[in-house]
Amino acid sequence: MTMDGGRRRGRRTADGLPRLPWRSMVNPYRPIEILSADQVEAIHRASLRILREIGVEVLGDRALDLLADAGATVDRASRNARLDDGLTEELISHAPSEFTLHARNPARDVVFGGRNLVFGAVGGPAFVTDLDRGRRPGNFADFQDYVRVIGSLDIVQQEGGGPLEPNDLPVPTRHLDMYRSLAVLLDKSWQSLGAGRVHVDDAIEVHCLIRGIDRDALAAAPSVMTIINSNSPLRFDGPMSDGLIEMALHGQPVVATPFTLAGAMTPVSLAGALAQQNAEALFMVALAQIARPGAPMIYGGFTSNVDMRTGSPAFGTPEYVKAAFATGQLARRYGLPWRSSNATASSVVDAQAAYESEMSVWGAIMGGVNLLYQGAGWLEGGLTASFEKLIVDSEILQMMAEVLVPFEVDEATLGIDAIAEVGPGGHFFGSSHTLERYETAFYRPLLSDWRNFETWQEDGARTATQRANGIWKQLLAEFVEPPMDPAVRDALDTFVIRRKREIAAG
Amino acid sequence: MTMDGGRRRGRRTADGLPRLPWRSMVNPYRPIEILSADQVEAIHRASLRILREIGVEVLGDRALDLLADAGATVDRASRNARLDDGLTEELISHAPSEFTLHARNPARDVVFGGRNLVFGAVGGPAFVTDLDRGRRPGNFADFQDYVRVIGSLDIVQQEGGGPLEPNDLPVPTRHLDMYRSLAVLLDKSWQSLGAGRVHVDDAIEVHCLIRGIDRDALAAAPSVMTIINSNSPLRFDGPMSDGLIEMALHGQPVVATPFTLAGAMTPVSLAGALAQQNAEALFMVALAQIARPGAPMIYGGFTSNVDMRTGSPAFGTPEYVKAAFATGQLARRYGLPWRSSNATASSVVDAQAAYESEMSVWGAIMGGVNLLYQGAGWLEGGLTASFEKLIVDSEILQMMAEVLVPFEVDEATLGIDAIAEVGPGGHFFGSSHTLERYETAFYRPLLSDWRNFETWQEDGARTATQRANGIWKQLLAEFVEPPMDPAVRDALDTFVIRRKREIAAG
Repeated sequence: MTMDGGRRRGRRTADGLPRLPWRSMVNPYRPIEILSADQVEAIHRASLRILREIGVEVLGDRALDLLADAGATVDRASRNARLDDGLTEELISHAPSEFTLHARNPARDVVFGGRNLVFGAVGGPAFVTDLDRGRRPGNFADFQDYVRVIGSLDIVQQEGGGPLEPNDLPVPTRHLDMYRSLAVLLDKSWQSLGAGRVHVDDAIEVHCLIRGIDRDALAAAPSVMTIINSNSPLRFDGPMSDGLIEMALHGQPVVATPFTLAGAMTPVSLAGALAQQNAEALFMVALAQIARPGAPMIYGGFTSNVDMRTGSPAFGTPEYVKAAFATGQLARRYGLPWRSSNATASSVVDAQAAYESEMSVWGAIMGGVNLLYQGAGWLEGGLTASFEKLIVDSEILQMMAEVLVPFEVDEATLGIDAIAEVGPGGHFFGSSHTLERYETAFYRPLLSDWRNFETWQEDGARTATQRANGIWKQLLAEFVEPPMDPAVRDALDTFVIRRKREIAAG
Repeated sequence: MTMDGGRRRGRRTADGLPRLPWRSMVNPYRPIEILSADQVEAIHRASLRILREIGVEVLGDRALDLLADAGATVDRASRNARLDDGLTEELISHAPSEFTLHARNPARDVVFGGRNLVFGAVGGPAFVTDLDRGRRPGNFADFQDYVRVIGSLDIVQQEGGGPLEPNDLPVPTRHLDMYRSLAVLLDKSWQSLGAGRVHVDDAIEVHCLIRGIDRDALAAAPSVMTIINSNSPLRFDGPMSDGLIEMALHGQPVVATPFTLAGAMTPVSLAGALAQQNAEALFMVALAQIARPGAPMIYGGFTSNVDMRTGSPAFGTPEYVKAAFATGQLARRYGLPWRSSNATASSVVDAQAAYESEMSVWGAIMGGVNLLYQGAGWLEGGLTASFEKLIVDSEILQMMAEVLVPFEVDEATLGIDAIAEVGPGGHFFGSSHTLERYETAFYRPLLSDWRNFETWQEDGARTATQRANGIWKQLLAEFVEPPMDPAVRDALDTFVIRRKREIAAG
């Protein structure tokens, strides 16, 4: 693991909120294997068969044309595209196994693939909530505040493409206001919107502006990233396919993510859910490679299950964890970086939200995930971005980051001399071995309260969620925008004004 | 994994509380390795050096005599015992790598060692708490109710030696009332007290009575299990050493557990903490093997850290997880079953309690733990047994048990025909493939609420902890004692009355 900055255990606010410093994370653990090699191949072959015999319904004309030109069997009437095994395997082989995504601040670049691990923030909820104001539709003021808190947490290494929907902004130009806020408030990487060519092209323009480069340089060193979903089962809509192609043409990475809830959008059995997820993911990877061989891609897995009594989606379940382990193996089979999520179905930031999130996070990290998307803030099956959950998840992610730090064993850390010096029945608080190390020996929590019951009670008997409420408010109050060249900022504002005018003019 | 009973997904209460059925668990995953082989050996050698050069202060005469007779270097004045490397290695080699602990109901026997996994309940807290009555000193009425709820949860496979201290009972005979309750209310295995010969001998007698066997048969097929702690650093007190010896002499398994908080009771560096933990654990294993070669032992790891600003113990921390991974490797190096714990420092059943417990549980299970002691109910650093936490933890353990169920990949589970039948854009709810499998396809939660926000809100907007409150009350209300032969019960009562009279007479 490489560290950035001099302090091993992070920065603090004026009032002493401890946070881990930015770090590039490498997962030192061998990934868990839930599938045998034969089982991986059986799922792979089933996926090829789905693409060969059943095919995908493709609603975008541009995608259908590209697929036909590349040799897929296309039925224009039903919009069905089928790929033979050789074509699928040949196309997906072009996607790179590792790539770097460049942030405005080069120290915040992130690497996807191999054993690299990146934590991303929540993206996409329609609602926002906090303990004071309750649940409400997403709006632009909350959007900006939420992004500011994300900016103050180095453990959240990538913003997720808008942590909540600013429903109070006009739809046609909303993405411009979102991009401008993300570009100004953050110097780490942020995701853009992928539904259609306009969202993608405007994101590309913004990134060229803030990095001071042209589109060729951006293709060589990408900055734009977005999630592209299939409409499971086996349907790929027009805006998503157009967005995918536009991203690929510009060499910008796409997270190809079937959103597959077993029992509803896929077979109820996990093997079938994965075979279908895998077919849809490979289809998106293949299409991107038709558009531009070598276009960077991430294999997105989001197989969970529904409550079969009610149809409600469930997350952080045992099935979710098992699907994550298996998806990691599939992604590695293809040499693709793998994305998973920190998900929960809970409606409130309680013990359930925490244990479901932990299930999701451990399943992903033990499975060798490369991008933990929706890593901090997601609540209620992704319908709501919670300010308090952002803090709870940041604590969870910080702890996991520390679990990945290699173990040191040497003469000094074994400390036999200290054990001899203290002797049977003594204590180590005053030993020189302790005094030399105690400030940096252990992870210092952002949120956890380790005080005894009486002290905790006298201080208000607050739950972790109540404490998180104070923490995000403090981080927000102390937020400082990362510096931006005024000329860049002017160019960005000029661009947004121009594009809004163009869009208004139709 | 073997299943017991016909229903794959468990029993339900009259009102429909779903619970997993009893099952013998085998962990299919390769344990995480945080230490290289060289690092394991470096810690091993450091531990041998500690035992050779520094030694252990032994407060029990019986232990000191046994050690001296076996060839340890004993200083009677300082009560220091040192073991040379050959003696340590020879002694620990006698401990078995796997053994079965026999319950009153043979279907509830548990196996320790190899890839077997057993979940145990909380043991030892001084306080008890629930949402209605708050935190209060442990008492016998709560003790019995708590044991009843443990009895109703098959996922909690072993009781932990008294889930809370019945402080309202007289100290000299308290253990007899505890044992009688545990013997009558549970047909699964339960732990006994280990501080001294009387606690152990009375437990042995109770187990002989309820199983209808004599002490030789009990030695051949053990039932009594207890935790023995060293007083870290490197001190072993009289009652603990007497209890250890008495257990070993009768062939009953001991969980040898140094309670080592890095920075306080061990060096602040994890390598040093583990070297010392390992030395203390090996010392206890060695002493037991002197008493009876082949006495079954479990290697207990409980290395965590303290908050260096306050001295407060912390649990479920990154350091705790890393120490767990490393301890698993050490235990496997010696061919010993390994015990870890589900621990949290939180004072309340909140998100922190859940995420610290998840950290502890995942660290243990990914590390290949054999006994997850304190698996359900522990709160506040082990000072308090919480009724609601018992339910939250049972949900966490049930989910983990399901994560361990092997993945099925075959023609039927791949479900290509169902995918073809549903086709692009359809849904799987009505497919015959779904209808044949939906009732048992997914884990059904005990506690988690997956309903949408509006439904959850209209139903009282209760947190997981508030729902857990209703669940334990329902389980308690519906509890049915497992059947016991009236003659056995009479013999048990007679024994308890006799022993109370003997103790009163001094």
